[in-house]
Amino acid sequence: MAFYKNILGAQVSEAVPLPEHGVSVVFVNLGNTKIELLHPLGNDSPVAGFLQKNKAGGMHHICVEVDNINAAVMDLKKKKIRSLSEEAKVGAHGKPVIFLHPKDCGGVLIELEQA
Amino acid sequence: MAFYKNILGAQVSEAVPLPEHGVSVVFVNLGNTKIELLHPLGNDSPVAGFLQKNKAGGMHHICVEVDNINAAVMDLKKKKIRSLSEEAKVGAHGKPVIFLHPKDCGGVLIELEQA
Repeated sequence: MAFYKNILGAQVSEAVPLPEHGVSVVFVNLGNTKIELLHPLGNDSPVAGFLQKNKAGGMHHICVEVDNINAAVMDLKKKKIRSLSEEAKVGAHGKPVIFLHPKDCGGVLIELEQA
Repeated sequence: MAFYKNILGAQVSEAVPLPEHGVSVVFVNLGNTKIELLHPLGNDSPVAGFLQKNKAGGMHHICVEVDNINAAVMDLKKKKIRSLSEEAKVGAHGKPVIFLHPKDCGGVLIELEQA
């Protein structure tokens, strides 16, 4: 957060704890794009394993908006792209999100968020 | 390229070879943001090592625009953020680019591009 705010001079949100997702999040505003800074929260944080493998931090996932998340997931299922859960959950912006399997996405963890 | 174009239905450029950078690039248009797909080109591609470590692919770097790259690098140098080269080079858009040291940027390889 200090790096993006004080060093790069970006517009940075306050830290928001999301206990149900096991992370605290900070958003760096880049116009119609945001960088989401993730910090583990609680004992079973989903980013804990990532940080064990990447001690210095790193890039965790990208998120792209879709108009209708259920339609998107059904379409992707037909195209043999797996999602990491059966159904969408409510994400950091109070909107439905779902993650796609990195092995089906060129090694990249892709999150879909309903706009 | 096929994944972003045919599966996700994104607007995707043709592949552009950049021999002087050792990569072919494809841009996925997301409004004021692009995903840049990188493919190694030639024997000494700078992404070859990354792909050896990440057989399935992965996220390589993020790029943020700055108004004046020389001023940005001087400012970052004062703040003890190292760049990977002494001077900016011409990047994929014909504009000056420079990479910052991931160890000074939370484990993330950050490219600056002059807008």
